[in-house]
Amino acid sequence: MKLATVRIDGRTTWGIVEGETFLDVGAVLGGRYADLKAAIGSGLSGVADARATAAAVPTSRVVWLPVIPNPDKILCVGLNYETHRKETGRAEVAHPTIFSRYANSQTGHLRPIVRPRVSTDLDFEGELAVIIGKAGRYISRADAMDHVAGYSCYNDGSIRDFQRHTHQFTPGKNFPDTGAFGPWMMTPDELGPLGELKLETRLNGQVMQEARIKQMIFDIPRQIEYCSTFTRLEPGDVIVSGTPGGVGARREPPLWMKPGDVVEIEVERLGVLRNVVEDET
Amino acid sequence: MKLATVRIDGRTTWGIVEGETFLDVGAVLGGRYADLKAAIGSGLSGVADARATAAAVPTSRVVWLPVIPNPDKILCVGLNYETHRKETGRAEVAHPTIFSRYANSQTGHLRPIVRPRVSTDLDFEGELAVIIGKAGRYISRADAMDHVAGYSCYNDGSIRDFQRHTHQFTPGKNFPDTGAFGPWMMTPDELGPLGELKLETRLNGQVMQEARIKQMIFDIPRQIEYCSTFTRLEPGDVIVSGTPGGVGARREPPLWMKPGDVVEIEVERLGVLRNVVEDET
Repeated sequence: MKLATVRIDGRTTWGIVEGETFLDVGAVLGGRYADLKAAIGSGLSGVADARATAAAVPTSRVVWLPVIPNPDKILCVGLNYETHRKETGRAEVAHPTIFSRYANSQTGHLRPIVRPRVSTDLDFEGELAVIIGKAGRYISRADAMDHVAGYSCYNDGSIRDFQRHTHQFTPGKNFPDTGAFGPWMMTPDELGPLGELKLETRLNGQVMQEARIKQMIFDIPRQIEYCSTFTRLEPGDVIVSGTPGGVGARREPPLWMKPGDVVEIEVERLGVLRNVVEDET
Repeated sequence: MKLATVRIDGRTTWGIVEGETFLDVGAVLGGRYADLKAAIGSGLSGVADARATAAAVPTSRVVWLPVIPNPDKILCVGLNYETHRKETGRAEVAHPTIFSRYANSQTGHLRPIVRPRVSTDLDFEGELAVIIGKAGRYISRADAMDHVAGYSCYNDGSIRDFQRHTHQFTPGKNFPDTGAFGPWMMTPDELGPLGELKLETRLNGQVMQEARIKQMIFDIPRQIEYCSTFTRLEPGDVIVSGTPGGVGARREPPLWMKPGDVVEIEVERLGVLRNVVEDET
């Protein structure tokens, strides 16, 4: 199943995506779930049943919002592909590198990624996002996948000069409308085995980053185990699982995204997240 | 005015603190504001008027919760007193060092600070917390103080081995029940000028950290200016403004908090935040 959060005629809702059709499950189950995060928290109970009575809307009519617009936590894994670790010159570490985004830095599929007026150093980072379904603390690797509600594409858009102001990444990773998340989440049963799936970032059609999910240094069970050691994971939490080599900042000369650029993050079988860069107005 | 979020007989509410009395304004204005964060977002409109009809409860009967249990963002400023920067051996930087806590890492006054089962390296960090009242982006230093709703004491409790797993602080700063926030927030009109106020951390009655607010490297207007450059500040957001030298991790030998320890953060004129350390059960 593919699930998305969207706006239709100014109204925010969520539902199932099937081909070119959006099924407005949120309107059917509105009395039961405030949003997709709440539905995930119940294990999507009743969602498949609501499909039959949900209004069908062409996807061309929806405004795509971040899959989860209001996660309690967005946990980002840095330096989690060997090609990216090497290009940044960082040493090997025994634990995942974790930093965080705030929810208000996110944007949806086909919405602009915004280059802020204070910087031109806007960079892409194509990633696989993991959406937590079942709460937990001290989750073992063996149990980790039971806590996953689904997967999505994520562009962990970064303002590199702000990221490097100090040793903490927070400022460079939190500009409004820089974290693209979508178009939808796909449930694990539909996506199937992750390892061989290709993750690819394209800028104006040209491949910038490319890796298989199995090339992660810390795999998804290890990420869930580690994060749930220091925080209680909640339904709707998002783990953004790291980006491969090829970022713009490490090219010679650096390649920054600029207004009019089209950036696409594709996870094989899952979908394509597409955004156009705009200047802040 | 002093404002707090509390639990009374299992019910969560918020209100005004006057001496040993809690005035349950939340019960009066419950139809208008969901919580203290919402009331702050309206500029505390109607709060003073509700005082007359609010039920009075002895503070001995309330369970103190984090002043804002559900901030959208907790922005922590690292290395913001020269004494602490020097003891950590970090270089001078031109911008504030910003990392983040998640809301679920917080705890209230007189509630336990929890030493997790996976570490003994539990450290204190006494700080002044700034609670944002008015939303804004690109806030100038000159306008910054207009965006402040109030101040509180904060213990940015840290699990140092997890903080040092990589160069990003997130894991060490987010263990549940390590970020103590309270007892209340005090509005700027009541607190008065900040510069000369003393910030002090005591462990079992012994002074561990001591500084004047004016000794911050980046003052509060600069913190608000910087943070609002990369994120839109919202009512109820918390800026935890940094800790002075004297943390346990930089002592010889390191001094870790252990079960039964009493840790107090006092900001002169504002109040004393007191917690007892307990082992995770």
